[in-house]
Amino acid sequence: MRDVAVVGVGMQEWGELWGKSTRDIFVESALLAMDDAGVDQLGAMYVGSMSPGIFAAQEHLESVMADYLGQLPIPATRVESACASGGLAFRLAYVNVASGMHDVVLAGGIEKMTDVSGGEATHALSTAADMKWEGVSGVTFPGLYAMLAVAHMERYGTTREQLAMVSVKNHENGYSNSRAQFRMKITVDQVLDSVKVADPLNILDCSPITDGAAAAVLMPLEMAKKLGKPIIQVIGTGHATDTIALHDRADLTTLRAVTEAAKQAYAMAGKQPADIDLVEVHDCFTIAEIIVSESLGFFEPGKGGPAVEAGETARTGRIPINPSGGLKSKGHPVGATGVAQIVELVEQLRGQAGERQVKDARVGMAQNMGGSGGSSVVHILEVK
Amino acid sequence: MRDVAVVGVGMQEWGELWGKSTRDIFVESALLAMDDAGVDQLGAMYVGSMSPGIFAAQEHLESVMADYLGQLPIPATRVESACASGGLAFRLAYVNVASGMHDVVLAGGIEKMTDVSGGEATHALSTAADMKWEGVSGVTFPGLYAMLAVAHMERYGTTREQLAMVSVKNHENGYSNSRAQFRMKITVDQVLDSVKVADPLNILDCSPITDGAAAAVLMPLEMAKKLGKPIIQVIGTGHATDTIALHDRADLTTLRAVTEAAKQAYAMAGKQPADIDLVEVHDCFTIAEIIVSESLGFFEPGKGGPAVEAGETARTGRIPINPSGGLKSKGHPVGATGVAQIVELVEQLRGQAGERQVKDARVGMAQNMGGSGGSSVVHILEVK
Repeated sequence: MRDVAVVGVGMQEWGELWGKSTRDIFVESALLAMDDAGVDQLGAMYVGSMSPGIFAAQEHLESVMADYLGQLPIPATRVESACASGGLAFRLAYVNVASGMHDVVLAGGIEKMTDVSGGEATHALSTAADMKWEGVSGVTFPGLYAMLAVAHMERYGTTREQLAMVSVKNHENGYSNSRAQFRMKITVDQVLDSVKVADPLNILDCSPITDGAAAAVLMPLEMAKKLGKPIIQVIGTGHATDTIALHDRADLTTLRAVTEAAKQAYAMAGKQPADIDLVEVHDCFTIAEIIVSESLGFFEPGKGGPAVEAGETARTGRIPINPSGGLKSKGHPVGATGVAQIVELVEQLRGQAGERQVKDARVGMAQNMGGSGGSSVVHILEVK
Repeated sequence: MRDVAVVGVGMQEWGELWGKSTRDIFVESALLAMDDAGVDQLGAMYVGSMSPGIFAAQEHLESVMADYLGQLPIPATRVESACASGGLAFRLAYVNVASGMHDVVLAGGIEKMTDVSGGEATHALSTAADMKWEGVSGVTFPGLYAMLAVAHMERYGTTREQLAMVSVKNHENGYSNSRAQFRMKITVDQVLDSVKVADPLNILDCSPITDGAAAAVLMPLEMAKKLGKPIIQVIGTGHATDTIALHDRADLTTLRAVTEAAKQAYAMAGKQPADIDLVEVHDCFTIAEIIVSESLGFFEPGKGGPAVEAGETARTGRIPINPSGGLKSKGHPVGATGVAQIVELVEQLRGQAGERQVKDARVGMAQNMGGSGGSSVVHILEVK
């Protein structure tokens, strides 16, 4: 298989984009990525989107997007793995280029979630849970992650305040991200005093409903070298599944799909947690970031909460987590999130992240997750 | 890239399967394919499904299926391109094996369409059209294909009776397929006298709403040679897109995505239409089979209707089309259809198709299509 580089990334401001259609949003980010890469013709494209059928009454999205991007008749593929759809689109684009099928391939992610009612959006998101065992009982994602939080707090003594500190840190980071949905600094007290969603999680522990897209262009490393810009190579990819239904898991305090996907990515890259300079993780809820940081191997089980409290995951800490602001501040248009993580890594590894820049960033990791951990995709990128 | 073979296929009876869940249906066919291949451990799997979020309130389907198939934590990917989702899952499984990523990969397709009302099913299917330009006006798929039929009849003189003969032929073929949803022989008069859906198409010109799944197992050719059974090699793959909205097409009497996908597959396989011994095509409506048979290069433009009338596409004709019974008789669980076409090709090329057997079948083609031709996937398989 061929070595592969990311040569262009694009992302517009996220938020409640009522003035733009799903296709507008996708095409804007895709064109930015193509401009950044300096290409106007794609060999193929992959579109990550979780539930455009429910959110926008539009399946068959990949053909619409290929059309509106002016790329017909290229092969276009929609990929879905709930909230990991974007990361998975990036992985398939990587495989496509690595295999030799095509040379210039776009991975994009898109979700427009605010055109339906809150109830419909909650229903759409709940289809990422196990509908037969979880959905039918009425549990939705805040409830599922609340169960993970309770388990983690009971076993390890993770505190309510440590959960809040994840949110405070990510809002601090997102404050300097011009594309973030919620650019406001918050305090631990504000998180603790915000409205309860599912005990122990409050509204400021939860990522929001967002409209947004993100895109990246990949090509063979040898071709990328001719572009005369920093080379960002994809050195590791991993993808794994777990039971969606929480009752079937042996342990609620760890995420098996994350550990397994990371294991694959570390092995392929020849790297260990200590080699990673920054990580974008899937903080759909504050507890998710803490558990994921442990499942990725950055902290021992149970030490993720104290690490946040000690500032180890701050932008200037030992292992900066979510310098972009994460899902919490940047927003979480579910299908786009995994690709937006790649956008952040590329900007950081190029040294183009401005106020968000992590010092001496040479190796970055992105961890995207479906549902309550029923799937996860992990990538490691390195500047050459 | 490595050569790839299909070493196992599986498919249960299709129909209104109210006693079985979506996961039951998928797992039954997947286990049949794995038994046929003689494997019990997969390296990865791809699941084609168009709209499980609307039909079954279950996105994130690939993880559910990996779980219920006993294959956690393997990477599992859901793929969607409307009614071409199954063919696309097969293509991605092919690329995965060819690239060297994994050795034993399952491609499955699934749709359970009868658990919702007819109105909901029609809505779900209409999300494969361009919702912004077609769906909002209230047009659904019978109407869209009726427009293609009118255009073809006006330009080429294709007759109402020739459309009916496609249906008669496919029901004749499906009569001897034990897994077909509608095993009944019909006459041209019955088609002409059946209830009008969208002029000129009657109910017996339309494929049905169906519950069903199908699966295939792929592995490297060199590994397949050790299994001691007929080797069915994937010698060509093609995938292309077109505008979904009909008003943006220069010509309604041909299907550009089909022609383009076929061109890729023929070139890769080093074959021409005359080299193909049988074809499974996407006859979602009778007119679709006629146009597709021309777009694939089997007949000159406008000659598809007369060819059916002359019996050239019968099982014993010059180029047998849809010996399985096609979507019309076998049924059309949208995400499963593309994989079921592969199942038929493999059984035919192995000489295991029983009463449906096409004589001296050595090279087969499968053509799967999304919406009214906004996407198409074409594969060519050969027995070695």
